[in-house]
Amino acid sequence: MHIYPDIPSTAPYPKRTHTCGELTPAHAGTHVTLTGWLLPERKVSKFMSFFPIKDSSGITQLVIRKGDADDHLAALSDVPVESTVAIEGQVHVRPEKSRRDEGTGQIEVQVDKFTLLNPAQCMPFIPSDNQTLVNEDLRARFRYLDLRRTALSDNIRKRSRVARIIRDTLHHDGFLEVETPLLLKSTPEGAREFLVPTRVGRSTAQQDGKDIPLFYALPQSPQQPKQLLICSGAVDKYFQIAKCFRDEDGRKDRQPEFTQIDLEMAFVSWGADKSYSRSDTWRVGGHEVRAVIERLVGRIWQQVEGITLPSSFRVITYNEAMTRYGSDKPDTRFALEIQDITPSLPSRARSSLENLGEIIEAIILRPSENNQFLRANDECNSQEESDTQSVITDSNMLNWLCDNRSINLKLSHDEHVLLNKTLGVSSGDTLWLSRRRKVPEGGSTALGRLRIRISELAHARGDYVPPTAPHFLWVTEFPLFTRADPDKEFLAHGRWSSTHHPFTAPMWQDIEAMYAGRTDQVRGQHYDLVLNGVEIGGGSVRVHDACMQEYIFSQVLQLSDSEKASFNHLLHALKCGAPPHGGIALGFDRLMAILCKTPTIRDVIAFPKTGAGTDILFKSPAAVNKDALYQYGIQPTHG
Amino acid sequence: MHIYPDIPSTAPYPKRTHTCGELTPAHAGTHVTLTGWLLPERKVSKFMSFFPIKDSSGITQLVIRKGDADDHLAALSDVPVESTVAIEGQVHVRPEKSRRDEGTGQIEVQVDKFTLLNPAQCMPFIPSDNQTLVNEDLRARFRYLDLRRTALSDNIRKRSRVARIIRDTLHHDGFLEVETPLLLKSTPEGAREFLVPTRVGRSTAQQDGKDIPLFYALPQSPQQPKQLLICSGAVDKYFQIAKCFRDEDGRKDRQPEFTQIDLEMAFVSWGADKSYSRSDTWRVGGHEVRAVIERLVGRIWQQVEGITLPSSFRVITYNEAMTRYGSDKPDTRFALEIQDITPSLPSRARSSLENLGEIIEAIILRPSENNQFLRANDECNSQEESDTQSVITDSNMLNWLCDNRSINLKLSHDEHVLLNKTLGVSSGDTLWLSRRRKVPEGGSTALGRLRIRISELAHARGDYVPPTAPHFLWVTEFPLFTRADPDKEFLAHGRWSSTHHPFTAPMWQDIEAMYAGRTDQVRGQHYDLVLNGVEIGGGSVRVHDACMQEYIFSQVLQLSDSEKASFNHLLHALKCGAPPHGGIALGFDRLMAILCKTPTIRDVIAFPKTGAGTDILFKSPAAVNKDALYQYGIQPTHG
Repeated sequence: MHIYPDIPSTAPYPKRTHTCGELTPAHAGTHVTLTGWLLPERKVSKFMSFFPIKDSSGITQLVIRKGDADDHLAALSDVPVESTVAIEGQVHVRPEKSRRDEGTGQIEVQVDKFTLLNPAQCMPFIPSDNQTLVNEDLRARFRYLDLRRTALSDNIRKRSRVARIIRDTLHHDGFLEVETPLLLKSTPEGAREFLVPTRVGRSTAQQDGKDIPLFYALPQSPQQPKQLLICSGAVDKYFQIAKCFRDEDGRKDRQPEFTQIDLEMAFVSWGADKSYSRSDTWRVGGHEVRAVIERLVGRIWQQVEGITLPSSFRVITYNEAMTRYGSDKPDTRFALEIQDITPSLPSRARSSLENLGEIIEAIILRPSENNQFLRANDECNSQEESDTQSVITDSNMLNWLCDNRSINLKLSHDEHVLLNKTLGVSSGDTLWLSRRRKVPEGGSTALGRLRIRISELAHARGDYVPPTAPHFLWVTEFPLFTRADPDKEFLAHGRWSSTHHPFTAPMWQDIEAMYAGRTDQVRGQHYDLVLNGVEIGGGSVRVHDACMQEYIFSQVLQLSDSEKASFNHLLHALKCGAPPHGGIALGFDRLMAILCKTPTIRDVIAFPKTGAGTDILFKSPAAVNKDALYQYGIQPTHG
Repeated sequence: MHIYPDIPSTAPYPKRTHTCGELTPAHAGTHVTLTGWLLPERKVSKFMSFFPIKDSSGITQLVIRKGDADDHLAALSDVPVESTVAIEGQVHVRPEKSRRDEGTGQIEVQVDKFTLLNPAQCMPFIPSDNQTLVNEDLRARFRYLDLRRTALSDNIRKRSRVARIIRDTLHHDGFLEVETPLLLKSTPEGAREFLVPTRVGRSTAQQDGKDIPLFYALPQSPQQPKQLLICSGAVDKYFQIAKCFRDEDGRKDRQPEFTQIDLEMAFVSWGADKSYSRSDTWRVGGHEVRAVIERLVGRIWQQVEGITLPSSFRVITYNEAMTRYGSDKPDTRFALEIQDITPSLPSRARSSLENLGEIIEAIILRPSENNQFLRANDECNSQEESDTQSVITDSNMLNWLCDNRSINLKLSHDEHVLLNKTLGVSSGDTLWLSRRRKVPEGGSTALGRLRIRISELAHARGDYVPPTAPHFLWVTEFPLFTRADPDKEFLAHGRWSSTHHPFTAPMWQDIEAMYAGRTDQVRGQHYDLVLNGVEIGGGSVRVHDACMQEYIFSQVLQLSDSEKASFNHLLHALKCGAPPHGGIALGFDRLMAILCKTPTIRDVIAFPKTGAGTDILFKSPAAVNKDALYQYGIQPTHG
């Protein structure tokens, strides 16, 4: 049999008997056939070489004993690295000194025969070369080679495993997986949605006697279909690992298509009563959703990481999160807590702040207590944040507050002495100060952002090492409506927006306030799940009372009739005996990135897009020729 | 507590202790809380009523004993049917004579207290009314109510269960589930694809100094991503329950979005050799794919239907399927086989047919043998098919062939006598005759279509009852290229098309013929899975030799450079040590329709679209205003 080291085999070839990851000393003496990718040769002598052969399950060491130069096996040296081969040979236990405990390290296979299945002739880089990781663009363009790296293929494998744990757990809990449509209706306010023109059915829609183009839209989440499904009563507990879509400028590490673990349950609680034992901290409804997620996340960490999580996660209110940590997704793994120092101020200052509805808050770093963060703190000193910083020295002990540019308050000598005493301030401390509205708004405060910045700097310097155990946290009792979300303002045009979405139920204690028009006082039955300071999911109890939903649309959000129209079917479904219901969605990509300990979700997606939404492997998005567009009834604006 | 029979509860309500499907005599005496939908009252006396309460798990009978008219419980009679309620009460074993074995038929719950959760005030129809099924349009518009019907919700539940079996089986077999992109690249020939315009990144693409619109496309299948994934070596066995999209005129029971069970495997066989024991009938490669699917389908039927399927399914070649059944997806549950009568013709007629490359074939119905089909046969007689029919009577015994309009052959008296004898024709028989090209083309022949028509008529009449056991069948050895597919011709413009897709490998026995330009003689390593005459899936061994793939693109299919461009990354991946690989995709919707014994896939999809691609619940597709389109750089053709 002659060898053509550059011609793929296109004939029947020997069937593999084992994978490259499974042979052990128990197989010694067995004749095996392995298939896989050939890694670089290591020549032991003129007559003997080692070749590792790799497949997705592992690596096996091949031993080649060459006879004369015409020997069939000698040709293996001419086969390019990363080619696929089938080899036949016998399993041997390795000589004692070269045995390894990992993988197939106890054995080697002495090769009798090989078949070149497909030569690697065009490698832009060698993925098995762990020494040099080529640049990101090249790896993105040849993603199918980058995926050959174990670091990435391990992530893909782990993702499949976690998806399986999720499904097993939810099925076990009585959930049904139901697919909801991806070709949905565009919404008037669909600011970030993808449209999908269709050629079909166009002739039925006419304007001035002419066909008009028709569009579906891809969902940003299965929110409406899943609520309708639960309203139907067909399914008591729904879940789906669902694809969602968002056409937006590449924010940090987002993808235009992403995956959610989406679930919804009928007959969830509507706030706490005596039948819910943990009602002390969790005062919104949806206890059942909480319990499912805690069980689910617990099983994932148990099975994937071997870590036992607490059986229930800490709950804090939005208000507490904003007050103590300055963030609605606080990283509670470290302290550096914010304190409201208003109560320690003299009464004159207190009442002037109170009249303005403001407070003054501080992060106090004491050298004695905050060792890990001191150098990061100094670094912040020289940054933009420094305008809110007061480093206490002997000389400014009695005017650090007045000197702070962000505060604008005057204190007398005595008042300052008293304040220092109350706060326990001494020379060498650093105080970061901020004056803000007492009622927190939005996702973070100035000190909350600073707190994260100090921790990141300390982490980068190696001074602070976050604990390995994950910190899960529920945040509840968000304001139901907001005017402080710039992302929503361009649709709201000065009206109130829903902090999350318009279907979130108010806390029942606040229903009266809502109907009385005290919109800013209404808290929602919403819950966010936060892990290590990253929001990994959120959900809520939904409005099931059609009149209440209509009131929210019309009176609170002041939607126009056309804005309301796309919710008509939901309103009607509520009027047909919809059960109280609620749910949640977790970001699967983000969850996987955390489990794979990688900073970017691109590392846990088989074929991701760049931050700009471009796919450099498949070369999309791309221009489409005019004739093709014409079939959809559309043309470029600049023709 | 006062009752407002039309106001939903928006306060904490009692937590359910059990579902409506789980109570048994073992619960007798227990105080329970149930939540669900109230079904119509059945009054036993002035003081006692029965109400069934239903949730997705079942129905429980409630007993209401009313005191005086002011009694709280009396108000239950005013609650509209299909409202959601929470009831509290005690479980009793029913009096012996009213006990039923099904569901919760042994018990009833005597109600102490109820909470109206949400009244049903706007019901366009009552889904629990099994007597009258309202018209399809109304049910589609209010799908969320139609889903409340047990017939539909059972299908949704079964679909979730089957998806779970699929995943369990494939995970157990070592498959990984990997999500592939839905926002992909449009292809030049993308005749049926959906385009997705995007606002992001437009400014980077310019033509004549103007931004040009950019588009993704939704995949008709994950074919290219899954092949690239396998080429990467990251995954040895891939699967995905994948959403796919097709923008086409509503053919019979198709959906613009549909679901496939998609899989692909590395290192599949490339045709039979001695290591494959069943090589006698399955002569293409991909034995491993076959084995996985037979195991998978076997487990589904075992677990869902309690039916044990054969451990391997019958295999027939395309040629045999076309010859004996006139179809590439033959229904082999009944005989009515087609026979080639050319060999029985006199030699003169035979050679004239042979010169033309034609044959004459027949279906012969004998009253003695085809009892089930005789009345259907008579019915066909009066239809358009009658022009190929010869009913044998005493008077036409010797000219039935010559008289048949579809044949155009003359036989002498003696020749006819001999033919009758050879075929065993006697008076009263019916012969359906057809003259066709000897080499079969496309998906069916005239007699193949007639065969199905007769069976359908016989089935409709109740003369023929198909067996309950499912008949699975593999069809292999299809021609790799075709000119007989009208669906493809509008892209091919007279060139050869791939019968399935251009990545299908030729049978290795036919590679030489392919390179020699004998395109019509090349059979592909393709396999279709057919169930009861319905194609439920298909797959193939893929080309892994880049030169062969390039030859197919350029020399056989004669693709232009721009047509080839979208395959460049695949060609390159093949050059980087791609393993031999193959896979398959099964239509999940069709599979579920068969398992749910419903003729339409709409019954197994939670929120389906009409045959015309319209969603009358969500009201899509819909027009989009010009300003919104402008952001994507597109405008209507008729502006």
